[in-house]
Amino acid sequence: MPQALSLITLLTDFGDRDYFVASMKGVILTINPAARIIDLSHQIAPHAIREAAYFLKSCYHYFPEGAIHVAVVDPGVGTARRPLLVSTARHFFIAPDNGVLSGMLELETHAEIRRIENVEYRLASAGSTFDGRDVFAPAAAWLSKGVPAPSFGRPIQDPVRFPKSVPEWRNGELVGRIEYVDRFGNLISNVTAKHLDEVRTVSKRSTVRIRIGEHTIEGLVANYEESATDTPCALINSDACLEIALKRASASERLGIGQGDTLAVF
Amino acid sequence: MPQALSLITLLTDFGDRDYFVASMKGVILTINPAARIIDLSHQIAPHAIREAAYFLKSCYHYFPEGAIHVAVVDPGVGTARRPLLVSTARHFFIAPDNGVLSGMLELETHAEIRRIENVEYRLASAGSTFDGRDVFAPAAAWLSKGVPAPSFGRPIQDPVRFPKSVPEWRNGELVGRIEYVDRFGNLISNVTAKHLDEVRTVSKRSTVRIRIGEHTIEGLVANYEESATDTPCALINSDACLEIALKRASASERLGIGQGDTLAVF
Amino acid sequence: MPQALSLITLLTDFGDRDYFVASMKGVILTINPAARIIDLSHQIAPHAIREAAYFLKSCYHYFPEGAIHVAVVDPGVGTARRPLLVSTARHFFIAPDNGVLSGMLELETHAEIRRIENVEYRLASAGSTFDGRDVFAPAAAWLSKGVPAPSFGRPIQDPVRFPKSVPEWRNGELVGRIEYVDRFGNLISNVTAKHLDEVRTVSKRSTVRIRIGEHTIEGLVANYEESATDTPCALINSDACLEIALKRASASERLGIGQGDTLAVF
Repeated sequence: MPQALSLITLLTDFGDRDYFVASMKGVILTINPAARIIDLSHQIAPHAIREAAYFLKSCYHYFPEGAIHVAVVDPGVGTARRPLLVSTARHFFIAPDNGVLSGMLELETHAEIRRIENVEYRLASAGSTFDGRDVFAPAAAWLSKGVPAPSFGRPIQDPVRFPKSVPEWRNGELVGRIEYVDRFGNLISNVTAKHLDEVRTVSKRSTVRIRIGEHTIEGLVANYEESATDTPCALINSDACLEIALKRASASERLGIGQGDTLAVF
Repeated sequence: MPQALSLITLLTDFGDRDYFVASMKGVILTINPAARIIDLSHQIAPHAIREAAYFLKSCYHYFPEGAIHVAVVDPGVGTARRPLLVSTARHFFIAPDNGVLSGMLELETHAEIRRIENVEYRLASAGSTFDGRDVFAPAAAWLSKGVPAPSFGRPIQDPVRFPKSVPEWRNGELVGRIEYVDRFGNLISNVTAKHLDEVRTVSKRSTVRIRIGEHTIEGLVANYEESATDTPCALINSDACLEIALKRASASERLGIGQGDTLAVF
Repeated sequence: MPQALSLITLLTDFGDRDYFVASMKGVILTINPAARIIDLSHQIAPHAIREAAYFLKSCYHYFPEGAIHVAVVDPGVGTARRPLLVSTARHFFIAPDNGVLSGMLELETHAEIRRIENVEYRLASAGSTFDGRDVFAPAAAWLSKGVPAPSFGRPIQDPVRFPKSVPEWRNGELVGRIEYVDRFGNLISNVTAKHLDEVRTVSKRSTVRIRIGEHTIEGLVANYEESATDTPCALINSDACLEIALKRASASERLGIGQGDTLAVF
């Protein structure tokens, strides 16, 4: 895989007002001044590993071959939890072994996973509360300079993984879950376009119905503007997921629905 | 116009915590790994097209020749609203046709405006809720690689434009409007240094007075520190606009004044 | 010192939603299209000079030789306060003379400090409210193009400095101060690992005790996870500072302790 790209993306729960991300950038650029750093986000809620896992799964594949993705949501920093380096056909991932790579690993069946253990590629001054700066950033920088993955440590077979979230059939209805609430208050579910076909086959109707909270939504709209104001609508979003939305307003706030809540399709 | 720069700026209402901006960056870098992406802001309030228009107008001209500005505040995504590519003497602009380029078009009288319609330059997987990733980002990336503007689509003559906001004379007073409230709570109006000269000519006084809310401000200060604490002051800011401010405090909060409110100069 | 790097970092209190940072980036790239701009943070609280000073001190040294750090927290913009250019053995700093470089100057004993006064390196349209765009950004860009420091102005000897914050012995206890509260609510003090050794020597105990608010903490933990839930813990963080934390929660919120509050070690 080509290293010439030197593209390193950063995803953390460090926020934008502390010096943590700045320190990581400095460490990377000191090791590899040619590295190109792309901020994915630093606004993952503090310690929200699942949120980061969903984020990464949703966007990493848009990046070019050779990109190195660093994901640091790491409440267990300083404990025995392992720092990982994952190589896939097109990308690298550097993260703590706490499930933050779960979503990505669902999509990448031929991933090679290693424990980062070679102290040569750590910051000399490494402490116990900031592996983002002392372990993950240096590993990404050295990798971007061409250090091969095996130099960082031995393969492991048992990374922490969250169980995959899939809708279930219950009493003739497909029951799914809200996986993600975006900035606009759109409710993104784990029900896909393909699942809707299953529902149509079972119900023998061409139109699907969605029950969420106290609302029942009849059929899908093609885009946000097509729906009536103040009435929740459903649509297949650009990631082929069923999404509940309100025209120019927050469905999450108005419906009182959030991540983890269920919806039924029938 | 030189394309060698490959400079692409991003202005959106996508916020910092979702994977939307990250996906756009990935798409751009996959098409043009040499592209240099500059974040202008992703904190435009959701669906706030006018806010984005003011933002873009205020800063685009500081960028070097050849820069490509992508502005995605797009509540009408997936509808018939057109995606636009605008070429001016020095810059390119890529945005939905909803008025977000209004401010810029006030300043650029010789703009060539095209509808982006060539599907060759869209993402293959294009859905209907995320043209930022599927239409605008790819267009910017291909443009930065040297694809000429006419390849994207035919010229149009009727882009959506907001009416230009200008102060009006009423009963011997010049009545302006607060166009923008910045982070510090400074109130930036559509009254310019030139307008103040008109007021001075009419009033035959060298000092202007400004009435805003329940306050009357006498004369201008040269900088924020020159004013008395807890007393609103007026000054000509670095964009030659009349600005109402409070020393090290938010004029907007203390005075209860916001975007769209009026002020009178006499 | 090599200029080839053209690395310019930005630290401001301008926030993420206004066009101020965007304008600075445009100005820099117009003067030096090869400049590489790294955002440190724009979320310094408005006018919080000390917060910015602490931020800069905590991360600048991780950046490679030749990096140019621009720090703009500048309530005195437009007054007689001087714009400064500081050269150290490895870095450059560009900032208003208001103490924002205090922390850095504590660590850099051989700094050469100059007043930026050469109007050739200012923006022609310079106003009085936005030196970030009109003075500091152009200075950084010209410096990154190889203009030597002496060209910007004459040396000065008396930059504004805040008194250094150090713990004090009172009645056999070392009394320190919370210097910084991070996003996670961790309370970072001015007590260092070295100070703890002093305390151990005086107390003749191997374990230190920390009194903060109504809590007394016995001994240190090695990492956040090691502590009991809902019980404040103390640890030496990765910058060798004594830090008070709560496992996966905000110590600042739960304890009601913030920047400037004291703690006693004994």
